[in-house]
Amino acid sequence: MRELGIGIIGTGFMGKAHAFAYRAALAAFPGIPVPRLEMIADVDLALAAKAAHQYGFARASGNWKEMIADPKIDVISVTTPNTFHKEMSLAAIAAGKHVHCEKPLSPTLADSLAMAEAAEAKGIVTQVGFNYIKNPLLKLARQMVEAGELGDITGFRGIHAEDYMHDPEGPWTWRIDPSGGPGVIADLGSHIIGMARFLVGPIAEVSADVRTVVKSRPVSRGAKERKDVLVDDVARILVQFGRGCGGTIEANWIATGRKMQLGFELTGSKGSLVFTQERLNELLFYKAGSDAKTNGYVRIETGPQHPPYGEFCVAGGHQLGFNDLKTIEMGEFLGAIGGGPKAGPDFREAYEIQKVVEASIASSKARSWVKV
Amino acid sequence: MRELGIGIIGTGFMGKAHAFAYRAALAAFPGIPVPRLEMIADVDLALAAKAAHQYGFARASGNWKEMIADPKIDVISVTTPNTFHKEMSLAAIAAGKHVHCEKPLSPTLADSLAMAEAAEAKGIVTQVGFNYIKNPLLKLARQMVEAGELGDITGFRGIHAEDYMHDPEGPWTWRIDPSGGPGVIADLGSHIIGMARFLVGPIAEVSADVRTVVKSRPVSRGAKERKDVLVDDVARILVQFGRGCGGTIEANWIATGRKMQLGFELTGSKGSLVFTQERLNELLFYKAGSDAKTNGYVRIETGPQHPPYGEFCVAGGHQLGFNDLKTIEMGEFLGAIGGGPKAGPDFREAYEIQKVVEASIASSKARSWVKV
Amino acid sequence: MRELGIGIIGTGFMGKAHAFAYRAALAAFPGIPVPRLEMIADVDLALAAKAAHQYGFARASGNWKEMIADPKIDVISVTTPNTFHKEMSLAAIAAGKHVHCEKPLSPTLADSLAMAEAAEAKGIVTQVGFNYIKNPLLKLARQMVEAGELGDITGFRGIHAEDYMHDPEGPWTWRIDPSGGPGVIADLGSHIIGMARFLVGPIAEVSADVRTVVKSRPVSRGAKERKDVLVDDVARILVQFGRGCGGTIEANWIATGRKMQLGFELTGSKGSLVFTQERLNELLFYKAGSDAKTNGYVRIETGPQHPPYGEFCVAGGHQLGFNDLKTIEMGEFLGAIGGGPKAGPDFREAYEIQKVVEASIASSKARSWVKV
Amino acid sequence: MRELGIGIIGTGFMGKAHAFAYRAALAAFPGIPVPRLEMIADVDLALAAKAAHQYGFARASGNWKEMIADPKIDVISVTTPNTFHKEMSLAAIAAGKHVHCEKPLSPTLADSLAMAEAAEAKGIVTQVGFNYIKNPLLKLARQMVEAGELGDITGFRGIHAEDYMHDPEGPWTWRIDPSGGPGVIADLGSHIIGMARFLVGPIAEVSADVRTVVKSRPVSRGAKERKDVLVDDVARILVQFGRGCGGTIEANWIATGRKMQLGFELTGSKGSLVFTQERLNELLFYKAGSDAKTNGYVRIETGPQHPPYGEFCVAGGHQLGFNDLKTIEMGEFLGAIGGGPKAGPDFREAYEIQKVVEASIASSKARSWVKV
Repeated sequence: MRELGIGIIGTGFMGKAHAFAYRAALAAFPGIPVPRLEMIADVDLALAAKAAHQYGFARASGNWKEMIADPKIDVISVTTPNTFHKEMSLAAIAAGKHVHCEKPLSPTLADSLAMAEAAEAKGIVTQVGFNYIKNPLLKLARQMVEAGELGDITGFRGIHAEDYMHDPEGPWTWRIDPSGGPGVIADLGSHIIGMARFLVGPIAEVSADVRTVVKSRPVSRGAKERKDVLVDDVARILVQFGRGCGGTIEANWIATGRKMQLGFELTGSKGSLVFTQERLNELLFYKAGSDAKTNGYVRIETGPQHPPYGEFCVAGGHQLGFNDLKTIEMGEFLGAIGGGPKAGPDFREAYEIQKVVEASIASSKARSWVKV
Repeated sequence: MRELGIGIIGTGFMGKAHAFAYRAALAAFPGIPVPRLEMIADVDLALAAKAAHQYGFARASGNWKEMIADPKIDVISVTTPNTFHKEMSLAAIAAGKHVHCEKPLSPTLADSLAMAEAAEAKGIVTQVGFNYIKNPLLKLARQMVEAGELGDITGFRGIHAEDYMHDPEGPWTWRIDPSGGPGVIADLGSHIIGMARFLVGPIAEVSADVRTVVKSRPVSRGAKERKDVLVDDVARILVQFGRGCGGTIEANWIATGRKMQLGFELTGSKGSLVFTQERLNELLFYKAGSDAKTNGYVRIETGPQHPPYGEFCVAGGHQLGFNDLKTIEMGEFLGAIGGGPKAGPDFREAYEIQKVVEASIASSKARSWVKV
Repeated sequence: MRELGIGIIGTGFMGKAHAFAYRAALAAFPGIPVPRLEMIADVDLALAAKAAHQYGFARASGNWKEMIADPKIDVISVTTPNTFHKEMSLAAIAAGKHVHCEKPLSPTLADSLAMAEAAEAKGIVTQVGFNYIKNPLLKLARQMVEAGELGDITGFRGIHAEDYMHDPEGPWTWRIDPSGGPGVIADLGSHIIGMARFLVGPIAEVSADVRTVVKSRPVSRGAKERKDVLVDDVARILVQFGRGCGGTIEANWIATGRKMQLGFELTGSKGSLVFTQERLNELLFYKAGSDAKTNGYVRIETGPQHPPYGEFCVAGGHQLGFNDLKTIEMGEFLGAIGGGPKAGPDFREAYEIQKVVEASIASSKARSWVKV
Repeated sequence: MRELGIGIIGTGFMGKAHAFAYRAALAAFPGIPVPRLEMIADVDLALAAKAAHQYGFARASGNWKEMIADPKIDVISVTTPNTFHKEMSLAAIAAGKHVHCEKPLSPTLADSLAMAEAAEAKGIVTQVGFNYIKNPLLKLARQMVEAGELGDITGFRGIHAEDYMHDPEGPWTWRIDPSGGPGVIADLGSHIIGMARFLVGPIAEVSADVRTVVKSRPVSRGAKERKDVLVDDVARILVQFGRGCGGTIEANWIATGRKMQLGFELTGSKGSLVFTQERLNELLFYKAGSDAKTNGYVRIETGPQHPPYGEFCVAGGHQLGFNDLKTIEMGEFLGAIGGGPKAGPDFREAYEIQKVVEASIASSKARSWVKV
């Protein structure tokens, strides 16, 4: 039975999510190579050591380059802020490691392309953390689109809105440092753009309004001194898909009240789907042409009939959570390394998503449609 | 007690709705002038006679000009297809009648302006059938915005989508005859544009994608012969409000599954509101800054604390329906004629709404932002 | 065209609802006898006169016996407190008037039986105000049960809960005067018992817990003096239906937060239905055996395919409200008087419902099952 | 850092759930003793070996008694059918192991009492798999009740309904073998009874209707031969809580359409809570006395403000799933073994729950109220 030595760089929000997922991956996906939890690295060694203990990894390091150099490590997760993604990923690729990198892949399109090309040249497996499309109901949605159950697709309305930046008195943070690239359109927008691509296919052209609503923020909570905000906090985009239909996409991190409004309404000539991550175990499906008296939106609840739900629980109705989606993501990634089907989204796909982001920003500046 | 003689031109969908509403108006609004149900006119006299009997109007006519000439009639409702609105309304105005006209006001901006100016010159009271904003919860929403309970408004996402044209094999109808003006953007779009204006204020600029998805339709149900569709069936609009915030608006009559998806999400720095006409007796309200453990969206249910609900039912929870909204509309219209507060939307407001429609179409053709 | 002279006794909550409904009935039901709005009576003549004007009735009276004696009146609605129902109804029946009486029919079973027998002996048409089952979706639900679409019925869970008495400091009112009969079990319980019978059929046996939670109330708002509450405010009932299945029913007027939680879940071997009056234009339907991947509860929205919705609006999605249900009730009542199908629930059915109420109270006292 | 050697008996539905949970427990609860995954036992050694590999346990065994005898094992999870619970648990207790046993604890009240007493005599820590109350929102609900935020509790309506036995042609299984004890009332009823006790406190008295609706089942799928069903499939219970209020409880495994309808409505004089496991990351809360215009049910979404959600994800809105609830359960169990707060429900509590089950069955037979 093949084993894969796992390393994680970073111990924050996503570092923890990756650790949970690697620990659970084999339990959910018996056929994948066995993940051997080798090392966690963090610039703060104490944090790394604490994480390694807590998440059951064998070793800790205060220097991520040790991980790159370690021959027992086959797979590296990069979960640091995105300004570090390129350097770490390229080093890992150069060392022949398979790389999972959190999104956004990098602050600039050029860097992301370089990362994708390096990985492809080296023939290693990459993946980027677009976890929400790992939902079994999203897989079902895609199958339904592909099978023509919705007829011709006539529209897609997508949104990813949260409110963690809604308070104008909320302080300036690294998240809005422009050296990290654009703001909400990269952070949340990339999720819903990726979801749109996953379901409907490539986006050909955009006309966008990308703006900064909260113009300045205190340098710290309660401080009088304020600092200008140089990245966007709302993006609204008209999209033209390559397959011919239109749609809209919104990314918004000042959407007061919303904690996870990542959702869409996808309409076709014969049916439609409605989804929101706020109720991630439900998918609404309308099929035209049924008996009019009893027709309407069906609330589909996730169950074992929607793979790979059954790997987590044999009975329907028990529900998956966010960490389970992350486990599916890692299970598929390790499976692909083991020779299984290509899982994705890989670096190339992340680059394609970023192209839509950049085209939207360009469109907003030019106040016109821009080809992706 | 002042009386007003009422006449209705047209006996279709809206003719019936007006009749229900005039019959109920005094029961709900005791202070208004007493509506005396005088006459229903229809080009088909038999239909007019049947309607007059059924709706309790004193007389019927096969010629709407009789109504114009009748001194006992003080108020005229125009509920015919919109190609007739101008002629009928101008005649009524010229005769000094107060006029309620269904939307869209007319096929062209010029005609609508002419109608508004004629009414203003004559000093008569006008109203246009934007019934959905008559909902007590919409009045509450507007009050909350005006009172600053949501803080600075940072976004509005509105939609009016239905599916009555979703089937590509559904036949060509008068509704898509281009002599009646544009398609869904006028028919449904005007409702959500009007709602946006009601809540957030004037729209200054738009960037729109207005398109025809179903390119041709059979000349009749099942016919082999097809006719080109020359009006739009989906419109997606980026909007810039005069007050500074942005938003999106969609109008769509091929939204398979949707029967009345007229709704919005309105976001401010301190709170937000979510509404859909699919559940017209509910308004979701989120207020930032409450106790984090128990904060969330509040589902407000209409009750007597939301005027004029109490005029229909003294106890909460009993719910209003569409015809009740229409009754509020007529009650306010008659009240305004009686010297009460100006109700609106009047012809001028309908013209302002239409300017957004026309700017959107122009924007879509120019593929750029267009000032309203 | 036959006409029916209409009289209403009482100008309160239900008096107004009846007035709205009689005014609208012909507009919704063209085939019924024409209701001629003749008289409103109230012990307070000024109130009666005001109501007659506002609701468009020809005359007012301060003495309901005038209405009984008036030959121009064919139909009488009794909307007074239920201690008056018997005397008024029997007088009306004796005078050969058709009678609509609000629920509960009377404070005692004996009185209700006397009323039913008097009406039957005289051959007049009666109806009692169980308005909620007039909902087109309830008619659909009953048809589905009868057609076997749900298979064998295996359970019914019904509730009618509101919160208008939830505050222990809310004052004593006529509503809880024991001379009016029992409390919530008669007031709200009768609605859900009636709905259970409408859908599932007769109730054969009950085991109930009928109790008074709020033991005393101030004699008036804020008063120190308190008065004992002698009627029930919560009733929980195990039921055995005549057709063999079991169920539960709850009536509750101290259900803090609930304004109109009148609903049920009806389960059969092949499907199930879920309804709440809180969303009266929706019915949830689950059908076993469909494609597992896309099966789930269907949200049916009322539309013209659900008669008589189409009489109120030709397009789906527009929604009915409470007053529309009342209009259906009156339309059916007048239609039955005109020789149309028997509408009901009539006095006899109200008596049958009351038998379940009384059996529940007896069961609660005996702490055992009691046959109805 | 203290370690605890973990063993699991059984590799089915719950065996897997326990394995996931033990693997994740330390990642979520850094302060607990470190779980060392030692052994999985199953009567089928091959299954045990496969599970041990997949779930990362060091060893497998085909004989559970090996686990009992193994000094490296400190904690044993019993996840076999409940006819085996007593023997295995008593053996583990005798060997001084801490025991987690799945519910129902045993087929008979006497056996469960014996198990509880044995554990107490030995001073070991026990826990029983009532996982759903581990939900952070259930903890919040209990705190709100205890803090008096809902005022005096006036009612509890609870249900656990699923449909895995709804089809009368579904075959006879071990689940309905009467040697395993009663049917749905033990299987699902124990969950909602436990939840009722968790939130409202002890149940003093019951009046129940416990019945077998599907009287016989085919011996195998499609077989002509049928076998009588001797256990209940629906139980409806009137309950009297020790604190004085009443309520109803339903357990139902023939509830066509329901996959996880485990929920309640809890009403107090000042507020109420509504929950369903179908949307386990939401709790509805109504607070009386707020501003009437904007009052209503608040939809609380789980977040880091609801411990221990934050141990799974630092950001709100991401949602927990079933396996996370199981992880909380195991984390608390191991924490209690390590000297942390007593987590429960322990064997004694499971016995108390079972007393309600048995009293309900007795009540149903006697057709009268029975003290618990």
